[in-house]
Amino acid sequence: MKVLVAGGAGFIGSHLIDRLLNQGHEIVCIDNLSLGSRDNIAHLSDRDKFRFYDNDLLDSEKIDEIMRKEKIEYVFHLAANSDIQASAENPSIEYQNTYSTTYNLLEGMRKNQIKKMFFASTSAVYGNKYEKLLDENTPDLRPISYYGAAKLGSEALLNAYSYMNDMSILVFRFPNVIGPRLTHGVIFDFIRKLRCNSKELEILGDGQQTKPYIYVLDLIDAIIQFMDNVKIGVALYNIGVETATSVTKIADIVCEEMALKDVVYHYTGGSGGWKGDVPRFQYCLDRVHAAGWRAKYTSDKAVRMTVRHNI
Amino acid sequence: MKVLVAGGAGFIGSHLIDRLLNQGHEIVCIDNLSLGSRDNIAHLSDRDKFRFYDNDLLDSEKIDEIMRKEKIEYVFHLAANSDIQASAENPSIEYQNTYSTTYNLLEGMRKNQIKKMFFASTSAVYGNKYEKLLDENTPDLRPISYYGAAKLGSEALLNAYSYMNDMSILVFRFPNVIGPRLTHGVIFDFIRKLRCNSKELEILGDGQQTKPYIYVLDLIDAIIQFMDNVKIGVALYNIGVETATSVTKIADIVCEEMALKDVVYHYTGGSGGWKGDVPRFQYCLDRVHAAGWRAKYTSDKAVRMTVRHNI
Repeated sequence: MKVLVAGGAGFIGSHLIDRLLNQGHEIVCIDNLSLGSRDNIAHLSDRDKFRFYDNDLLDSEKIDEIMRKEKIEYVFHLAANSDIQASAENPSIEYQNTYSTTYNLLEGMRKNQIKKMFFASTSAVYGNKYEKLLDENTPDLRPISYYGAAKLGSEALLNAYSYMNDMSILVFRFPNVIGPRLTHGVIFDFIRKLRCNSKELEILGDGQQTKPYIYVLDLIDAIIQFMDNVKIGVALYNIGVETATSVTKIADIVCEEMALKDVVYHYTGGSGGWKGDVPRFQYCLDRVHAAGWRAKYTSDKAVRMTVRHNI
Repeated sequence: MKVLVAGGAGFIGSHLIDRLLNQGHEIVCIDNLSLGSRDNIAHLSDRDKFRFYDNDLLDSEKIDEIMRKEKIEYVFHLAANSDIQASAENPSIEYQNTYSTTYNLLEGMRKNQIKKMFFASTSAVYGNKYEKLLDENTPDLRPISYYGAAKLGSEALLNAYSYMNDMSILVFRFPNVIGPRLTHGVIFDFIRKLRCNSKELEILGDGQQTKPYIYVLDLIDAIIQFMDNVKIGVALYNIGVETATSVTKIADIVCEEMALKDVVYHYTGGSGGWKGDVPRFQYCLDRVHAAGWRAKYTSDKAVRMTVRHNI
């Protein structure tokens, strides 16, 4: 099948391309290389079935042209801002890179009669509801970050476009995703800080922020498993692991893997890392488990494997 | 208080301005007159406390300038596309006029430290769930129109902006709103058709589409009653009437009020009027009733009063 991977030079997108190529699909990758990088796709440059466009998804005419010219049959939309901390100071990042990219891709699909899509959503759509196990029917979604708002707005678009144009759309609400090619986040920050100073580590918040971390290859397995299994409409799944890892535990694992002992932790205090950060959540994964997928790695294991790849 | 009414030359916005002026507030109205009209605000031209800007809300610099210069304290956001049938053919109408207007107003508020807002949302955010009485905790919202999607996306933005900037935002999910100054919709269409041909009337769908219609002045009462009664965060209410009116009943009322007898109805068939139309819904209004507001007029009465104003 001829597929478009939007954001394909990014952390998750590039792993998805690797797998889709192995499955025999023909790949068109669009990425503006703002968060993605050529390094992530450099190993694919001599593959016949891989073509890369260095374009911005805000250029709707170009998207339309690529979809038409390449005769795209399936769109994987993994293009978005992924650095929530950055957009907290500048919401236009989310308006453009997270919401408007979705709108432009859906418009391209509508005009070119493309009927299949995968969309990367997020736990951030739920907002701060850590007293509850979050399932796909949790009501009253109130995102607290501009990122979560743009993703929830994107989900709303998917519903209308699928209904109006008979599209089949698979949506996964990702938890924190980690693994090789990670570009930012707490693991990344701790390694960087400990390389500068191996005696002390500043930890944002009280260290008790606890979230499920999924290993990127586990996530890719799930996308591949469900990608063709969608009727007309939107199939929505929470995707993740049943375990979770606290920020302090992440610090412990990083120190262990870097063979550092007696590092003194300094906590900045407060329950969240920064304004807009959801300090704690856990998914109910019954729907995706019932559909026949389950993560291979626990959250702690995913953290440890990621640290090993990045030190 | 100095308030901005975005979309103030429109059907609902202009009624809101009338009432806010009577309450002693100072009004700044922005409207690009695409769906609104000068006629709706002509009677206000000599009022000291009313100022009109013929500007587009997509011009974010101008919004910022007006908010700063006018020292706005409260924003009433009633600017949106209101013609769902039109945007079904052209989704960019909703991306621009319904979603991006919300984003631009919120950005203006953030930059100018404006902390209070009223937002006009819609039953269309729920999608097609007519087997259920819709309350504010109904889960799994799946709008089927681009309009509903843009409004749900806007609500998501309100949640993030209120959290990040300590804003107090009142949101009403409107049902069908009717009354003087109405510009389109089924009542409007029936009157127009019967003026051309008083013997026969074409009715879209099977005529059994049944929705609650609220009289615009009832709705304005509710906005005024709750406008100052919001803590930091988003206060969300379904607003409406407990009764509902079928499309065939509307035809009957229009014929009665126009004193037409023996009009032959021709139904185009199917359950909905057009793709993206939700043929039937009913609200649970417990939350707004418990808060102390209740509509004065039934749905049928609102239809009849509206017909009288428009024939």
